Amino acid sequence: MDELDIETVDEVELSDPVLVEGLPGVGHVGKLAAEHLLEELDSTLVRQVYSEHFPPQVDIDEAGIAELTCAEFHAIEVGNASETQADDGDGDIGGRDLLVLTGDHQAQDNIGHYRLSSAFLDIADEFGVSELFALGGVPTGELIEEYDVLGAAANEDLKDDLEGVGVEFREDEPAGGIVGVSGLLLGLGRRREFDAACLMGETSGYLVDPKSARAVLETLEELLGFELDYETLEERADEMEEVISKIQEMEQQQSMDVPTDEDLRYIG
Amino acid sequence: MDELDIETVDEVELSDPVLVEGLPGVGHVGKLAAEHLLEELDSTLVRQVYSEHFPPQVDIDEAGIAELTCAEFHAIEVGNASETQADDGDGDIGGRDLLVLTGDHQAQDNIGHYRLSSAFLDIADEFGVSELFALGGVPTGELIEEYDVLGAAANEDLKDDLEGVGVEFREDEPAGGIVGVSGLLLGLGRRREFDAACLMGETSGYLVDPKSARAVLETLEELLGFELDYETLEERADEMEEVISKIQEMEQQQSMDVPTDEDLRYIG
Amino acid sequence: MDELDIETVDEVELSDPVLVEGLPGVGHVGKLAAEHLLEELDSTLVRQVYSEHFPPQVDIDEAGIAELTCAEFHAIEVGNASETQADDGDGDIGGRDLLVLTGDHQAQDNIGHYRLSSAFLDIADEFGVSELFALGGVPTGELIEEYDVLGAAANEDLKDDLEGVGVEFREDEPAGGIVGVSGLLLGLGRRREFDAACLMGETSGYLVDPKSARAVLETLEELLGFELDYETLEERADEMEEVISKIQEMEQQQSMDVPTDEDLRYIG
Amino acid sequence: MDELDIETVDEVELSDPVLVEGLPGVGHVGKLAAEHLLEELDSTLVRQVYSEHFPPQVDIDEAGIAELTCAEFHAIEVGNASETQADDGDGDIGGRDLLVLTGDHQAQDNIGHYRLSSAFLDIADEFGVSELFALGGVPTGELIEEYDVLGAAANEDLKDDLEGVGVEFREDEPAGGIVGVSGLLLGLGRRREFDAACLMGETSGYLVDPKSARAVLETLEELLGFELDYETLEERADEMEEVISKIQEMEQQQSMDVPTDEDLRYIG
Repeated sequence: MDELDIETVDEVELSDPVLVEGLPGVGHVGKLAAEHLLEELDSTLVRQVYSEHFPPQVDIDEAGIAELTCAEFHAIEVGNASETQADDGDGDIGGRDLLVLTGDHQAQDNIGHYRLSSAFLDIADEFGVSELFALGGVPTGELIEEYDVLGAAANEDLKDDLEGVGVEFREDEPAGGIVGVSGLLLGLGRRREFDAACLMGETSGYLVDPKSARAVLETLEELLGFELDYETLEERADEMEEVISKIQEMEQQQSMDVPTDEDLRYIG
Repeated sequence: MDELDIETVDEVELSDPVLVEGLPGVGHVGKLAAEHLLEELDSTLVRQVYSEHFPPQVDIDEAGIAELTCAEFHAIEVGNASETQADDGDGDIGGRDLLVLTGDHQAQDNIGHYRLSSAFLDIADEFGVSELFALGGVPTGELIEEYDVLGAAANEDLKDDLEGVGVEFREDEPAGGIVGVSGLLLGLGRRREFDAACLMGETSGYLVDPKSARAVLETLEELLGFELDYETLEERADEMEEVISKIQEMEQQQSMDVPTDEDLRYIG
Repeated sequence: MDELDIETVDEVELSDPVLVEGLPGVGHVGKLAAEHLLEELDSTLVRQVYSEHFPPQVDIDEAGIAELTCAEFHAIEVGNASETQADDGDGDIGGRDLLVLTGDHQAQDNIGHYRLSSAFLDIADEFGVSELFALGGVPTGELIEEYDVLGAAANEDLKDDLEGVGVEFREDEPAGGIVGVSGLLLGLGRRREFDAACLMGETSGYLVDPKSARAVLETLEELLGFELDYETLEERADEMEEVISKIQEMEQQQSMDVPTDEDLRYIG
Repeated sequence: MDELDIETVDEVELSDPVLVEGLPGVGHVGKLAAEHLLEELDSTLVRQVYSEHFPPQVDIDEAGIAELTCAEFHAIEVGNASETQADDGDGDIGGRDLLVLTGDHQAQDNIGHYRLSSAFLDIADEFGVSELFALGGVPTGELIEEYDVLGAAANEDLKDDLEGVGVEFREDEPAGGIVGVSGLLLGLGRRREFDAACLMGETSGYLVDPKSARAVLETLEELLGFELDYETLEERADEMEEVISKIQEMEQQQSMDVPTDEDLRYIG
C-alpha cells in the first residue's frame, strides 16, 4: 500500500456535482448529515480512499466482516434519483447532483490532514466538482434552543449566497479557525479556486447532535434544491433527548444527595 | 539501515503454510500463543525484520548479549515436525505447515503499523501463504470464567469455517475495531486477497492471560489440524492465579484497614 | 500542495533589507512587535508560505472569509515609506528597508521548524537580506518593572553592535536555549553566514505583553534608524493593565473569602 | 539543510581508535564521562552533526553567542596526547586513540534515533573505528553505596573482556532494554560487525551523578589503557553531595512540621 490508495469502486457520470463532506467532528454533525443524505437518497459508492494517515485499524461490520478503515465517496444523481425505501415517499427530489464524502475517521496527524484533503480535492476535480460544502458543528458550550447555522466561505459571492438562505457570518468566528479536513477543504479548496464553504451547525459540543445535523441539511436543501425526509434523524434526536433527560435526572438526584456546607458543619 | 530491513536468516520450503501472528497486545494473548507454538513445535528462524518504526532500543538476553529490536518469522513444518523436549510426548502433530510471526514490540507510530504490516504480508507471500490468523485478546473488563474466542474475518467463507469450530461473531464487536498489526494484517490482507481472520480470546484486559492464549490455540488446533501440549502454559496460568489471589487478599486487607464513614464521624 | 508552497504575491525591490521575524511565542512579544511595524509603516505583502507543517486549519477573518493558515513576508521600503493613517504624523521615518515575517502559527512538529526556517532564509536570500533579527520574549516568571532586552547573536561583531544600544548579554541565558523559528533563524542563519541575532524582551510569561514588544521595537529603532509611533501599542498595554488589575482584585477578594486555618478550627 | 548535515571541522589521523559515546541520559552519566575525557585529555573537534531530528533550538554559550544544536565528535590521540592544564600532572597517558561523541541532546523522535545512530556509525567507520563503547547510567531507584558498572555486549568475546575488568552482566538486565542512541549504537553496531558494548554505571536515577561517571571511566581506563585525573569530577560530586544533604535536611524538617494523625484528632 502507498501513502494514499484510491480505489475506483464504480464510475458514475455526474452533471456539475457539488461535493458535500461530512467526517467525524464536533457533535458528529457533519457525519450525521452526510449519512442522512446517503440514507434518504439513492447513492452509488464510487471511490474508497485508504491511507497510512488513517488509524491502523479495521472496523467490523454487523456481520463480523472486517474492512480496512477508509473514506468513501458516494455519487447521488439527484435529478434522476428515485426515493429509497427509508424515505416515506412525500419528499420531492430535485436539484444538482451530489458527491458525498464520509467515513469513520479523520487523519491521525497534521500532515495527513493536508495529504488527504488534497487527495479528496483531486477526486472532486475528477468528477467535475467546482463547488463544495464541508459540513460540521460549532461548539457553543450550552444546550441549543434554536439551531443557527454558521458559515465560512472562500469568497464574497458564496458568502452572499449563503447569507441569502439564512447562514450567519460572525466576525472572527469560529475563534480558533476550522481544523481538520473541513478546514482544509475550504483552505486548500480556495487556493485551487473551488467555491468552497463550511456550514457549521451550532451544537453544545457535549453530545451527538442530530438536530444540528438537520439544521445544516435544511440549509443545504435550500441551496442545492433537493428535499429530504427527516423521520430517521428525528428518531435519533428523540433518543438523544432521552439520554439528556436521564443525565439531568441523575444530576438532580446527585445534587440532592451531596451534603451541603451546612450539613458538613454538623459533622463532629 | 533502511526504513525496513528484512534479514534472511534461513530458507525453509513450506507446503501451503498458514501465517499465525502473535505480537504484544491486550493480555499478551497473541504473543503468549505464538510463543507457545514455538516452544512446543520444532521451528526454524527464517526472517528478522528490523525497522525504524520499532522503538529505538536493544533488548538484552539471558547472557547479557544485546540484540536490536525486531520481529521474527519462524517456519514450522508441522507435517514433518518432531516434538521438542518441552513436549511430554503424548501430543500428535499433524496438519498444515505454519509461518509464525512474533516479536517484543508493535510499531511505535501509525504509519509504521501500515509499513510493517505490508512488509509482513510480503514475506507471507514469499512463503506461499494464502491464509492467515492474527491472534490477540479482546478485553471484557471483568475476570473470565469461560474463555470464548471472538472472530473477525475478511470474508463470509472463512467466517463460516470459524463458526464451525466455535468461534463467535458478534455484531459490531470489538466495538472500537481491531487496532495495530493484527487489525492491519486483516484489513490490508483482505485487500491483497488473503483469507485473513483475527482470533481474539476474551480476557479481563488487566493481566497477562495464558488461559486466554490456550483458548485461542485450541481453536487453531481444530482449524489447522495440529496438537499441542499445554503444560508450560498451564504453569504460567497457575502463576498468574497466585498473583491474582495475592492482589485480592491485599485488597481485602486494605478495605478492612480503611476507616469507614462511620469511623470518621468520631474524629473530633 | 507540496510540503512547502511559497506564493509570490507581489515583487518589491528592497535595498539591503533587514529581516525582522515575529511569530507567536512567549508573551506574543515577537508577533506584537512585527504587527506593530506593519501597522505603523507602509508595507506590501510579498510572499505567503503555506506548509503541511502548519496546523491543518483555516483562519476566519472579520468578514467570515476563510484563509488557509500561512506565514507572510511584508516588504517595507523604510527610506521611501510614507506614514500610514494610524500614525499621528510626528514620527520621522528613515533607515534601512525591512522584510517583516509574521503569521499566526509556529510549525507543529520539530522537523517542520527546520524546514520552515530554511525556507524563510531562502526567501530572505532572494530579497538580498544579509542581516536578520528574530524578535521574541524571555519569560522571567514575575511582573516586569523595567523592560530589559536580552540578546543572543551569531557572532561577536553583531554582539558588540547590540550591546552598543543597550541589549544585555547574560552568560548561558536564556538557560534552555531559544526554541522554534526564532532559534533556528539564528542557528541555521549563522551556518549560512547571515548576521543573525535574537532580541528578547523580558516578560512575565503569563500574559500578552505590549510593553515588552515596545522595548524590543525601540531597540530595533536605534539599530536600524527608523521611528515609530506607539499610541496603538500603548492602548493595548493599557487594556492589559486593566485585565491584570481585575485579576489582582479577584485574587484579593478570594483570599479574603477563603477560610483560614484558624477559621477551620471552629468548624465542628 | 538536509535531514542530516555532517560538517567536517578538522581532520585527524587516528590509529585504530575506539568510539566512546556519552550523550544525555539517566543521571547524565554518559555525558559527564565523555565530557570529563575531553576536559582531561587534549582533543580536536573533528565533526559536527546537525539534524532535523534534534530539537529546533540554538544553545547560548557563556559569551551570548548562539550555536545550532548538534552532536560533536572529538579526536583524542591518546598515545601522543600531552596532558591539559586541568590535569594535575600525575596521570600517565597511554593506550588506544579515542573518538569521543557527545552533545546536549538526544534525537527527538524514534526514527531520528535510528537515523542519527546510523550516521554516527558511518563517521566511526570513516575514522577506522572497529570497537565502540556507549556510556550511560542504569537507574536503581535508591542511593548508591558502591558504584557497580553493568554491561551489555554485542558478542561473547567482548563480554569476556568486560567481565575481566569487573563489569557485571546480569540476566535480562536492564529489564526494559537500552533505549536511545546508546542502545542503537550497540544494536545497529552489532549488525554492522562493530565490537560494541554498553557500560552503564549504577545510579539512583534522581540526580546528576559524577560518581557513577567516574566508575564508568575507571572501567574504560582498564580496558583501553589510559589514565585520568578525577579532581574536577570529584568536585562536582562534592557539590552534588551538598545538594543531597540539603534536600535530606529539608525533608527531615518537613516531616517534623507535618501534623500527624494523632495531631489531627485534636482539631475540632
